[in-house]
Amino acid sequence: MLVRARESVPRDTITEPGARKAHIRWLITREDGAPTFAMREVEVAPGGHTPYHSHPWEHEIYVLEGVGIIACKGGWETTLGPGSVVFIPGGDEHNIKNYGRETLRFLCLIPHPPA
Amino acid sequence: MLVRARESVPRDTITEPGARKAHIRWLITREDGAPTFAMREVEVAPGGHTPYHSHPWEHEIYVLEGVGIIACKGGWETTLGPGSVVFIPGGDEHNIKNYGRETLRFLCLIPHPPA
Repeated sequence: MLVRARESVPRDTITEPGARKAHIRWLITREDGAPTFAMREVEVAPGGHTPYHSHPWEHEIYVLEGVGIIACKGGWETTLGPGSVVFIPGGDEHNIKNYGRETLRFLCLIPHPPA
Repeated sequence: MLVRARESVPRDTITEPGARKAHIRWLITREDGAPTFAMREVEVAPGGHTPYHSHPWEHEIYVLEGVGIIACKGGWETTLGPGSVVFIPGGDEHNIKNYGRETLRFLCLIPHPPA
């Protein structure tokens, strides 16, 4: 069993093109022995956003703090706040913007890529 | 894409023997189209605990609020609080007790069982 504090995990800048003021902590990974999926925590500073992109794998998201807007294909948008739960199927374009004055922080879990 | 508030998901009592004052919300499930894993939120009231048990699948846990104690085989225990991250491998005995005066609330994600 592994127990750690989120603060103990290094916070990396998301360098993918289209990301702005966004950071990620990989909280539980395959290297920890997790066989199926990974837990990451994303922080987006005020004025920041994640890239608008799509990929074959799904996201399962839970908003911890802050307020945001999630956008997807067709121009559809909705607001997010603490306790918002989001499922993004593989292949769906999406991004998340910080819409507030405080940090937007959310968990974003993904399946492991094939080994 | 699916966006919902945690509060909109029904809260069920955990009826497994050994559970006490523990409730669960299934936030993202296979029925939502999630292909790989499920997101659940567990609430344990003061004085309550989850069952002491083991199962073949892993848990990925993130503590949202409250304080708790996680116990596993061999009598090993440690405390949990907001931002604690736990990985429990399949087969490891475990339970989580509320050790505080407020509700202990955590996310607990599991892989889907084989279809």
